Amino acid sequence: MLGYAFMGKAHSNALRKIPYITWPPPLMPRLVAIAGRDEQAVTEAARRYGYERAVTDWHELVADESIGLFDNGGPNALHGEPTIAAAEAGKHVLCEKPLGRTADESHEIWRRVAAAGVKHLCGFNYRFVPAVRLARELIDAGELGEIRHFRGRYLQDWGEDPTLGTWRFDPAEAGSGALGDLAAHVVDLARFLVGEIASVSALVKTFVPGRKVDDAIEAAVEFADGAVGTIEATRLALGRRNAFQWEINGSKSSLYFDMERLNELQVFRADGDRTRGFTTVLVSEANHPFWEYWWPPGHIVGWGDTFVHEIHHLLRAIAEDGEVAPYGATFEDGYRAAEVCDAIVRSHERGKREEIGYRTV
Amino acid sequence: MLGYAFMGKAHSNALRKIPYITWPPPLMPRLVAIAGRDEQAVTEAARRYGYERAVTDWHELVADESIGLFDNGGPNALHGEPTIAAAEAGKHVLCEKPLGRTADESHEIWRRVAAAGVKHLCGFNYRFVPAVRLARELIDAGELGEIRHFRGRYLQDWGEDPTLGTWRFDPAEAGSGALGDLAAHVVDLARFLVGEIASVSALVKTFVPGRKVDDAIEAAVEFADGAVGTIEATRLALGRRNAFQWEINGSKSSLYFDMERLNELQVFRADGDRTRGFTTVLVSEANHPFWEYWWPPGHIVGWGDTFVHEIHHLLRAIAEDGEVAPYGATFEDGYRAAEVCDAIVRSHERGKREEIGYRTV
Amino acid sequence: MLGYAFMGKAHSNALRKIPYITWPPPLMPRLVAIAGRDEQAVTEAARRYGYERAVTDWHELVADESIGLFDNGGPNALHGEPTIAAAEAGKHVLCEKPLGRTADESHEIWRRVAAAGVKHLCGFNYRFVPAVRLARELIDAGELGEIRHFRGRYLQDWGEDPTLGTWRFDPAEAGSGALGDLAAHVVDLARFLVGEIASVSALVKTFVPGRKVDDAIEAAVEFADGAVGTIEATRLALGRRNAFQWEINGSKSSLYFDMERLNELQVFRADGDRTRGFTTVLVSEANHPFWEYWWPPGHIVGWGDTFVHEIHHLLRAIAEDGEVAPYGATFEDGYRAAEVCDAIVRSHERGKREEIGYRTV
Amino acid sequence: MLGYAFMGKAHSNALRKIPYITWPPPLMPRLVAIAGRDEQAVTEAARRYGYERAVTDWHELVADESIGLFDNGGPNALHGEPTIAAAEAGKHVLCEKPLGRTADESHEIWRRVAAAGVKHLCGFNYRFVPAVRLARELIDAGELGEIRHFRGRYLQDWGEDPTLGTWRFDPAEAGSGALGDLAAHVVDLARFLVGEIASVSALVKTFVPGRKVDDAIEAAVEFADGAVGTIEATRLALGRRNAFQWEINGSKSSLYFDMERLNELQVFRADGDRTRGFTTVLVSEANHPFWEYWWPPGHIVGWGDTFVHEIHHLLRAIAEDGEVAPYGATFEDGYRAAEVCDAIVRSHERGKREEIGYRTV
Repeated sequence: MLGYAFMGKAHSNALRKIPYITWPPPLMPRLVAIAGRDEQAVTEAARRYGYERAVTDWHELVADESIGLFDNGGPNALHGEPTIAAAEAGKHVLCEKPLGRTADESHEIWRRVAAAGVKHLCGFNYRFVPAVRLARELIDAGELGEIRHFRGRYLQDWGEDPTLGTWRFDPAEAGSGALGDLAAHVVDLARFLVGEIASVSALVKTFVPGRKVDDAIEAAVEFADGAVGTIEATRLALGRRNAFQWEINGSKSSLYFDMERLNELQVFRADGDRTRGFTTVLVSEANHPFWEYWWPPGHIVGWGDTFVHEIHHLLRAIAEDGEVAPYGATFEDGYRAAEVCDAIVRSHERGKREEIGYRTV
Repeated sequence: MLGYAFMGKAHSNALRKIPYITWPPPLMPRLVAIAGRDEQAVTEAARRYGYERAVTDWHELVADESIGLFDNGGPNALHGEPTIAAAEAGKHVLCEKPLGRTADESHEIWRRVAAAGVKHLCGFNYRFVPAVRLARELIDAGELGEIRHFRGRYLQDWGEDPTLGTWRFDPAEAGSGALGDLAAHVVDLARFLVGEIASVSALVKTFVPGRKVDDAIEAAVEFADGAVGTIEATRLALGRRNAFQWEINGSKSSLYFDMERLNELQVFRADGDRTRGFTTVLVSEANHPFWEYWWPPGHIVGWGDTFVHEIHHLLRAIAEDGEVAPYGATFEDGYRAAEVCDAIVRSHERGKREEIGYRTV
Repeated sequence: MLGYAFMGKAHSNALRKIPYITWPPPLMPRLVAIAGRDEQAVTEAARRYGYERAVTDWHELVADESIGLFDNGGPNALHGEPTIAAAEAGKHVLCEKPLGRTADESHEIWRRVAAAGVKHLCGFNYRFVPAVRLARELIDAGELGEIRHFRGRYLQDWGEDPTLGTWRFDPAEAGSGALGDLAAHVVDLARFLVGEIASVSALVKTFVPGRKVDDAIEAAVEFADGAVGTIEATRLALGRRNAFQWEINGSKSSLYFDMERLNELQVFRADGDRTRGFTTVLVSEANHPFWEYWWPPGHIVGWGDTFVHEIHHLLRAIAEDGEVAPYGATFEDGYRAAEVCDAIVRSHERGKREEIGYRTV
Repeated sequence: MLGYAFMGKAHSNALRKIPYITWPPPLMPRLVAIAGRDEQAVTEAARRYGYERAVTDWHELVADESIGLFDNGGPNALHGEPTIAAAEAGKHVLCEKPLGRTADESHEIWRRVAAAGVKHLCGFNYRFVPAVRLARELIDAGELGEIRHFRGRYLQDWGEDPTLGTWRFDPAEAGSGALGDLAAHVVDLARFLVGEIASVSALVKTFVPGRKVDDAIEAAVEFADGAVGTIEATRLALGRRNAFQWEINGSKSSLYFDMERLNELQVFRADGDRTRGFTTVLVSEANHPFWEYWWPPGHIVGWGDTFVHEIHHLLRAIAEDGEVAPYGATFEDGYRAAEVCDAIVRSHERGKREEIGYRTV
């Protein structure tokens, strides 16, 4: 594990829970080591989460032959080099999003890791919310018909809190602000649920004086299959704490979701006659995604549990030599999200609609 | 009254209710005449709504000296000529939105009506929803602080119903589709609540084969005062019947509204400490806008009642020789909304961000 | 019309709207006269609502042969004598709820009015909310299966407002407090939707010092067909302004309703598989009850409009010599609700479960 | 640990998470042994959850001197004897609710365990939902004023599922149906938030043919401090999966909660003027109860996490020789809930209001 802060805690919690929640687990995780720059902090983190040892130099993790999976939860600037090194040392890799700080960097990470032949998963954990997976399954089954609209917005409001942010406000460390932090999630779910994005007509905005990264982005988007909609992200939507909200309108059904009520999916079906309307599905039934691991219906899960599903998915792919795609985000997905984010910046700077082209490896 | 269909019914209902709901009324309406092209239908409408006579030629209304207010609820193509003629004949005028089919046409209507020196109100009735007026009053009182975001979308879903639409799908009659019908409302409330729109980066989309007007528009927008956001409108958001939803995020408060629950305003205030959150204000108290006319708190009003407030406002301006602005939309507001709508089309066609300039008369 | 305050306004509004909203109306109302004790106030009310004359003695209404329908919206103590007198003078009668202040008084009103052979409707207007009627139609069609539970509560919070109440806090005028004012509505909808009430185990409570009527009642109830549940009413549920909420659980579906969102009915259907949940039905479609009179879907109605439906129903029964039952509440329904209310008081006083027996005429 | 099914999983999960989520933990749990009747199942449970050994006879746990805390998650019939034995062997005890199957049995458990001088906690885990604790803190701070109403209902709908239930439908094993399973939770939170219950006027109902325990209970209740309200529980409220809903109305504020949205508390405050209404507080801020352990605001927790809080509370009481009360439910609380449940049955059988008396040890 690289990183012991927010993502380090979230991933470690998942690694600790998988052995007994997803029984029998595909692989039994052994928490070999955790790396971080602050020796005291990383030492305490190792004790707290049960890692066998703490290191202050991530190269030690790469060099450790007993490590089979390298999990990168560090700042964005530390995504590329360690992840590539680990993969080239033959380790499977999980890297938090955004994969790189730019499309170029992301492409390079993808290219070299893919060439290494290891399993790779980019940490778009919201694919592993039960309600999001259910949405995907409904779409795959054709229950939405032709999709016309996607409206996605990721709204938070801590952008003016002087106690928060740290490296996330530093362009060198983070690469961008709300764009890579929040909009990348919207882009990934848009791609996961609707399909490839063809163009963006976008704005990038910084409100806070002295802030060196963006606070918000706004984009009108076209999808390759003809749907149109919007993608928005901001750290200044007062009162919205973790409101990743999206709506999809198809010719047969519509879906609505809000991460602040992540156990619920709202579904409208055209076939309901006099009792039609948006149905609040409490996604917690035995026949709902991931629910085999949890509790009786109605006994909801939390945000942290999405990582249990995500890492379990990766461990199973490793154990069975299976595919991370399409339910998990590969590094190709990480790269493609970065292409869209880059296009948002270009559209803003050039004042024009940007068509998006995707590179291969 | 010109028109006896949807808007004719809505306006006539308001004219009938004003005398006893808004007691004492500023003026006592006398329903002199109603005009429409279908003689049998307009005759029945006159009997139904209590107009003294029915005519099939609107020129008769213009020529009738006993008429003091000309209310135009006809198709968009019939907004200009009759409204201008009535104003130039010295009658006050109420014209449904969109004022004209283009910015040019709208500007011409505004220019000539303003020159006639009569009162003019453009039928953006949603300014007269109690919750919308309350939002405006909170903003005017500085309770939102600096506004950062406006997200407005007007979603309906009848765009594929073969029994609906009629002139609304005819470019000559309507001028546009969702743009003038729905997006114009969003533009007006954006201007009413946040301020002037500076630029749009937009898409226009027609989904239904053979359809000659747009089905949907998507736009990223900048406001003159620095806020950014989105404006969306569609007739193909399955399950959304009349969902004019908007959210405003300020530095001190946020607001959220949905026309399908038009009696409610959601308000987030930064000062709530441990009990902060979005408050669902049921806008029906004695100290809420327009509520002096209605029922005890909690006894909600309907969509049709917004027209009571709107026409009452106009009648009072006439009676007292007061201003329609700023709470009512004047023809200048009607024109400015049209400029934004035109810019949306241009942005789509040119693939670039369009700055918006406003003409004077 | 007897009464010009809250109910006088609500009924007069309905009488004014019926001619053009429910087109063609079953009968064209002529507003002959309105009665009230305060000469100045009733004279102004006549001018406001368009009654041909105002009288201060209700006997004049009874004596007026041009009056065919006597509409009693006066205080509870004035329900009995004028209504009976009007019926015995051959007029059809509409009387606000509660029919009488006790079961005995209610029975006497029903008995004598029924003997007069006129049409009679007791003003349980909530039967005429579109969502409530839809609920009834779903139940009649067997879509709920066997009903197990009814939970109904009518919550308001003006019980401590010193400016309100007037005759409603006077036992002689009102007969009771929340019991006749609010609980009677719950009892009526329980009977309308589920069936006859067999027993109550109840409490009656007065919180406000010096208050001579009840502020709240609480009851566990059994229905004749085996369902069990609760009936509650209070004027001291802070924040609930007009929250008449009820839920019904059947073996095949469940329903939930809240009067503060009276355009919505929540429906759970057992047959939804992975997309099951409570569906928020916006009751405003062409195939929904009463919607033929109104606007396009999603354009909601208000509380006042329920009286349009109610009085239209009565006028049609008069015009066609049809039945007020089962969709309208007859005076028998008014009496039966009073029996349940009396049983609530007895249960409280005796500290025991009270079985309820119903008298015939 | 006694029991490896639903509660065994929930408690084991908590014991596994406490060491790293509540850092530093008050005590570091060592999972010594788990007991269950089915040797194969309990052996697998030990492997799954990390217990050092599995036993089929709970006496072995009592005899094991290395065990300091005996956690009883077995069927109700197995609550008494093992828990008393463990306590008398000097172990601290956690026993799932209901404490015993009757008030007598519960009193005996409380009496003997209290005499043993160990810490005792009865598993009313819903006291440890952050929103419920926040409610308690608001009430303790006087923010509700005088409490007038409590309306609590615990609604589930699996009562007709032939695959569920097992020992829960067996009167010998369970003691009762919805009463001990669900209503006991309502009673405990009523006591936790409002105060002691003085009387109940109740019904008990069994709908399913052949069912030997109750399916539902309905009660009108009085509190010692004057509040009145209702307590309801059912396993046959179709569509309600885990809907433990309660509302409290005070003279200054009201609160509403639904376990299906357990991260939210709805709060109405009388002091909000024109922006009053029910506020949906997303209970996930740094200054909210238990949130120091978790994620950034808006990143919600799940049902299972309530046990982390509960067992952490007990471990801290053990570590610091502190009190389980008032935030945790002691065995006295378990007994008192049983007295109310017994009174509900008596009220049903006798057809009268039952005053409740509480015994001491």
